[in-house]
Amino acid sequence: MQKFDAVVVGGGPGGYACAIRLSQNGLKAALVEEGELGGTCLNRGCIPTKTLLHSADVYYDATRGGDFGITAGNVTFDYAKIIERKNAVSKQLSSGIAFLEKNHGVTVFKARATLADRNTVNLDNGEALSCDHLIVATGSNPARIPIPGVDLPGVVDSTGLLNMTTCPKHIIIVGGGVIGVEFATFFYRLGVKVTIVEMLDRVLGPLDKDVTDFVEAELKKCGVELVLGVKVESIEPGLKVNYAAVKDGAKGTAEGDVALMAGGRIPNTRGIGLDTIGVKMDRKGFVDVDGLCRTNVPGVYAIGDINGKMQLAHVATAQGTMVADHIAGKPCKQLNLNRIPSCVYCSPETAMVGLTEEQARATGKDIGTGIFNLSGNGKALTMGENKGFVKFVFDKATEEILGFHVIGPRATDLAAEVAAVMECEGTISEIGSTVHPHPTVSEAVMEAAHACHGNSVHAPKARK
Amino acid sequence: MQKFDAVVVGGGPGGYACAIRLSQNGLKAALVEEGELGGTCLNRGCIPTKTLLHSADVYYDATRGGDFGITAGNVTFDYAKIIERKNAVSKQLSSGIAFLEKNHGVTVFKARATLADRNTVNLDNGEALSCDHLIVATGSNPARIPIPGVDLPGVVDSTGLLNMTTCPKHIIIVGGGVIGVEFATFFYRLGVKVTIVEMLDRVLGPLDKDVTDFVEAELKKCGVELVLGVKVESIEPGLKVNYAAVKDGAKGTAEGDVALMAGGRIPNTRGIGLDTIGVKMDRKGFVDVDGLCRTNVPGVYAIGDINGKMQLAHVATAQGTMVADHIAGKPCKQLNLNRIPSCVYCSPETAMVGLTEEQARATGKDIGTGIFNLSGNGKALTMGENKGFVKFVFDKATEEILGFHVIGPRATDLAAEVAAVMECEGTISEIGSTVHPHPTVSEAVMEAAHACHGNSVHAPKARK
Repeated sequence: MQKFDAVVVGGGPGGYACAIRLSQNGLKAALVEEGELGGTCLNRGCIPTKTLLHSADVYYDATRGGDFGITAGNVTFDYAKIIERKNAVSKQLSSGIAFLEKNHGVTVFKARATLADRNTVNLDNGEALSCDHLIVATGSNPARIPIPGVDLPGVVDSTGLLNMTTCPKHIIIVGGGVIGVEFATFFYRLGVKVTIVEMLDRVLGPLDKDVTDFVEAELKKCGVELVLGVKVESIEPGLKVNYAAVKDGAKGTAEGDVALMAGGRIPNTRGIGLDTIGVKMDRKGFVDVDGLCRTNVPGVYAIGDINGKMQLAHVATAQGTMVADHIAGKPCKQLNLNRIPSCVYCSPETAMVGLTEEQARATGKDIGTGIFNLSGNGKALTMGENKGFVKFVFDKATEEILGFHVIGPRATDLAAEVAAVMECEGTISEIGSTVHPHPTVSEAVMEAAHACHGNSVHAPKARK
Repeated sequence: MQKFDAVVVGGGPGGYACAIRLSQNGLKAALVEEGELGGTCLNRGCIPTKTLLHSADVYYDATRGGDFGITAGNVTFDYAKIIERKNAVSKQLSSGIAFLEKNHGVTVFKARATLADRNTVNLDNGEALSCDHLIVATGSNPARIPIPGVDLPGVVDSTGLLNMTTCPKHIIIVGGGVIGVEFATFFYRLGVKVTIVEMLDRVLGPLDKDVTDFVEAELKKCGVELVLGVKVESIEPGLKVNYAAVKDGAKGTAEGDVALMAGGRIPNTRGIGLDTIGVKMDRKGFVDVDGLCRTNVPGVYAIGDINGKMQLAHVATAQGTMVADHIAGKPCKQLNLNRIPSCVYCSPETAMVGLTEEQARATGKDIGTGIFNLSGNGKALTMGENKGFVKFVFDKATEEILGFHVIGPRATDLAAEVAAVMECEGTISEIGSTVHPHPTVSEAVMEAAHACHGNSVHAPKARK
């Protein structure tokens, strides 16, 4: 039996990062992964979808080149090639992770792991690993919606859709969350007819209402059909997606050739021995952890999607490195979930940090907001993308930033500034007094901070 | 004679912002501008060049769509239309400024101003304005290099080049600074032959050597001819640009149909009465000011390019609002020039804040660096733009960020994060402990911060 200081089970962005950091910290680390390194993120999630979206952007930009003095005759796309490039990007990144693990001295096992006890991991190749510390990072899988017809040909989850090599003609997307909206964006930009069917009365439920209103208007403008406030009841060959309104039960049907079931993700915590070793989980299968991702079993940690804190790749990675530092006895900061950015790659992109205005007002604090419209941003105009806005939600008494919401070009990168300032315990005033480079979209962040005090130079006078 | 609390002379990004903020602060403000509102920045500088560069990007992207599964037959550009769009963008923004001035209650005079005394401004339409505070913001113009042949047809400065409606075949760019390199990028991306002739032994002199090495390699790879370390002596019809090596006087000639003289900018401080009212200037014509942009004459301020602190639009704007707050008796922070980002829109774009590694080492402090290569950034790879790097220069004793250098996609927006953290007196560790959203290019900033401590997860082990 091989002996390690720590064994990490699951090679996604949580697990692979944890293993490397353990090794950087001088610990002997093993990483067990049955599939491809990089997990959902690199192979079936973040990266593949962003790669597809970039192809769709290139297509879209080429078709509207005339706006910029550029003419391109007969712009077409080759769907199989788009998928091929996506696969190549995933493969390159996954191989990169394999290289990094080796380079940092992590021993990688391509196998399925079962936890025998809190110090022993059995592999399905017959090997067994012993360890002082055990980190479980097995991720999540698309949830299966239990309705008649989900097994019909043409009904796919995100993993299935990513593997399709022919382009749908009309895709019905069941679920208007992040995954649904990103795929909708990819397809409508390629000219595919898209219908989103969503149970809530808006898409991207957890985002600020101003942002979701904007996204919905954009989707509609681009021809996406939104069927909101309905529950899907069955799918018939055809494909016919039958739904009923949540409010009054009114029935309806959306017809298309492909149906994407994008109804959330469930943790991969069954059948790997977590119960055997006594790890506590909630009813949905998420592992109970404390702020350091420790489970109730000493020496056993659960990071990433399986602890259900925030199902985001960057949270998994941050938890992975935090745990690795903690195990090594290094100083490590617990994550403050109110400072974690999250992104949606619709068009334009959107990102947020912290609370929505609604959530902030519910705290009972005296809340202020500052909004800057991108129509007043020079750089966005030069790019022909001056749609969107930046919005701060702040505590008037302390100037503390409670929430940040942005929709516009480069929005996902702009969120980093605000997350970093929050990490520094900085305020709205400090964002405002930072000289932002011109001409950049980032100036809009500064202007929104100024707007919190009613003195944005590039915005009309606020109505009193 | 109309009476104002403050009169601002010059309607560029310093002056127009100052006037609006004065008005926001409850002061009666006038703005005098003889040309278009927005000054060099909006009409002959930042914005027009970025607009051109965006057209070139669209052209370039359309021609290489195949990489992303997109085919565009017969991609062409219409140079006159590219210039037309540039003019339209400038006009839209300039009209926007006119609207904002009016909306905020600023009185705008389209006239040329002469300072009669420190409280009186004469306009060339016969009017005179009286004021308690006078803000001079007259900007700068391209420097004229005094050599034979600069008046030949085809020899232009940046203003002249922006007005040309036919595309050069081979452009000789005299001066490898920001202006020269940005125009070089615009033209080579359109397939125009470009030669840069520069006196220093590298382009973009003030940038970090690692960045300029990278830029030079990219320019060469894209077919740009770099003639470095030479002084231009004359231009002959043809056009023949004759130069001599700085080191040994060896002669040479670059031939093209257009020559751009991009040799810096001189302050517009002559002939407007600054001398009449006793304002102190240096030999080059820059106005002496203190940290609050006060000249030696009480009540008279000089902001923007004419004080020569940093010839950047965002510095002018920040000085303008600072002065307006100061005049209104509001708390105002002096600018810390070590925290001002600056950008170059080459391809990929580049930005910096603070000191170069060389400058930091010259302080005698114990300096560390952390570099992260964009080949390890997933988002950049999805965009097919994973070239470039992020570099921090920091003080090992205090973790203080001394310099930040980035070259890669969205680099100019990434600089805002670091400027803001510096404004918060944050450290390398705080950038590192900020959870950055995935997948974004901004993650590379975090990884470079980790690299400062030798524990970037996505980088190979540092060689000891």
